[in-house]
Amino acid sequence: MAARRGEFETIAALFRPLTRGSRAALDLVDDVAVLSPKPGMDLIVTADQLVVGVHTLGNEPSATVARKALRRNLSDLAAKGAAPLGYFLTIARPKAIADRWLEGFAKGLAMDGEFYRLPLLGGDTTSTTGPFSVSITAIGETPKGKMIPRSGAKPGDDIWVTGTIGDAAIGLDAIRTGEADAYLKRRYRVPDPRVEFGPMLRAIAHAAIDVSDGLLADLGHLCAASGVSATIDANAVPRSAQARKHGDLLRALTGGDDYEILFTAPKAAAAKIFRASRTANVAATCIGTIAKGRPGTVRTIGVEIPHERAGFTHF
Amino acid sequence: MAARRGEFETIAALFRPLTRGSRAALDLVDDVAVLSPKPGMDLIVTADQLVVGVHTLGNEPSATVARKALRRNLSDLAAKGAAPLGYFLTIARPKAIADRWLEGFAKGLAMDGEFYRLPLLGGDTTSTTGPFSVSITAIGETPKGKMIPRSGAKPGDDIWVTGTIGDAAIGLDAIRTGEADAYLKRRYRVPDPRVEFGPMLRAIAHAAIDVSDGLLADLGHLCAASGVSATIDANAVPRSAQARKHGDLLRALTGGDDYEILFTAPKAAAAKIFRASRTANVAATCIGTIAKGRPGTVRTIGVEIPHERAGFTHF
Repeated sequence: MAARRGEFETIAALFRPLTRGSRAALDLVDDVAVLSPKPGMDLIVTADQLVVGVHTLGNEPSATVARKALRRNLSDLAAKGAAPLGYFLTIARPKAIADRWLEGFAKGLAMDGEFYRLPLLGGDTTSTTGPFSVSITAIGETPKGKMIPRSGAKPGDDIWVTGTIGDAAIGLDAIRTGEADAYLKRRYRVPDPRVEFGPMLRAIAHAAIDVSDGLLADLGHLCAASGVSATIDANAVPRSAQARKHGDLLRALTGGDDYEILFTAPKAAAAKIFRASRTANVAATCIGTIAKGRPGTVRTIGVEIPHERAGFTHF
Repeated sequence: MAARRGEFETIAALFRPLTRGSRAALDLVDDVAVLSPKPGMDLIVTADQLVVGVHTLGNEPSATVARKALRRNLSDLAAKGAAPLGYFLTIARPKAIADRWLEGFAKGLAMDGEFYRLPLLGGDTTSTTGPFSVSITAIGETPKGKMIPRSGAKPGDDIWVTGTIGDAAIGLDAIRTGEADAYLKRRYRVPDPRVEFGPMLRAIAHAAIDVSDGLLADLGHLCAASGVSATIDANAVPRSAQARKHGDLLRALTGGDDYEILFTAPKAAAAKIFRASRTANVAATCIGTIAKGRPGTVRTIGVEIPHERAGFTHF
């Protein structure tokens, strides 16, 4: 049997390097991190978890499991206009998980820690009789009062979305049938949270949400929180060539895991949005408009949406 | 089959009330919380998880599972001198868990939320194929730079511990053999984090840690972090009458889950410690002294400690 590191050796070997020398992490020695917030800034905090086999297929490389878990949280921060500062990690490890798998997991976090310049600040490791699971609490910041809420959409606003929609859900289908190419696989396994673009929206967007439950469902959440309704042109929703090839429009609109930003802004903001889009090198597409009407209602032009396909939940 | 609430209904019915009207929680509408730290304060953050059947016996009332999960985090904050501000919660729910069990879980959080005046700030619910698990990230505050580290113990310091040691581990043994009384059951199931006393130690203690892995193990962690050694008088370690009746000294010293505070302070601080102890209504007992010597070494007078009993890990 291969040697198996204990809890403290695991922390020292795999997780302490992930702190990237952050003073706040205290070398993971103290069971806590110390954040000294800058004056004039709010801290934006989000917590999310990933259960292998529920939020993943269960056979992904451990590095991609780690990166997906982290990036889902970064997407929540980006959609609120927050720049990420660091993250806390708890993992529950079944006995069957070897040190080597966990090393891959830590390597995934190291890659993204490097890419986003993001330190691990603290956490906890334990065993479980269930599947491997990871819970991440990510902390970001905005200038005071500048978080972009879900609830700020106003009648007359345009509705925008970043990137392309449907790749992850259609990618998942294609992985299952063995038809996925590298692009679709990656879009399902390792999302691209709009970490640079999100904070640019602080001065532009009235309301924003990240697309995780599915475009229509998340637009419904945004409209419900804002007390407005929405009309979108389904054919304006940006889709990749691969998503068009492997899946239909309905799947794109209702599938989850896109981790794009859906936001609303006054019509006059279009030029600013295109400039930000070019700077951050991510597409932004106008797909509809906000109106008064029954709060939370989303009218879709160009495709019929069966009632039972309107959203997705992992609960 | 009983009706089962969906994710959004569960959040609205069970979790939104736990925010206690906190503005930071944004009514759980935004996937994030917004913290506006007070000038001159540090935020102290800790993340910990609890897996039913690993950290609990598996047959506890759900309210006590919730309270134990929350209180373990509050203990981490208290041992660092931090006053708690709120917490984030992620839960993974197996299909077999009924709404009623989850209602009890939320009720446990509501009770402790009321007791500690502590709001839920955000989180995530999902399903799992494994046991019920809960991960909590708790946030507290101290005046800037006043967190009590593990690493501050100095040769000549006295070593102190709050409350009584061994109740939880001996209580667990007694629950298993059917011999536990109400006191021991409670000490295992619902710890009493020293939330009031901890912040009083900011001006007194050189180093502190909460006792979760076992007194000797945690004293070893403190000494290792501080680069010092310790000598304790095993017979000075405070034990309850029930712990003395149902378990031996060795079990008390090495069992986990006490959630008392172990701290070091200069000899001259004794009078201050007794005053704080009376104010917070929790015993504080001097059990030994810090010295130079091989970092992390703990010498125990009065009982022989077999090497393999020196600590405990859930990993």
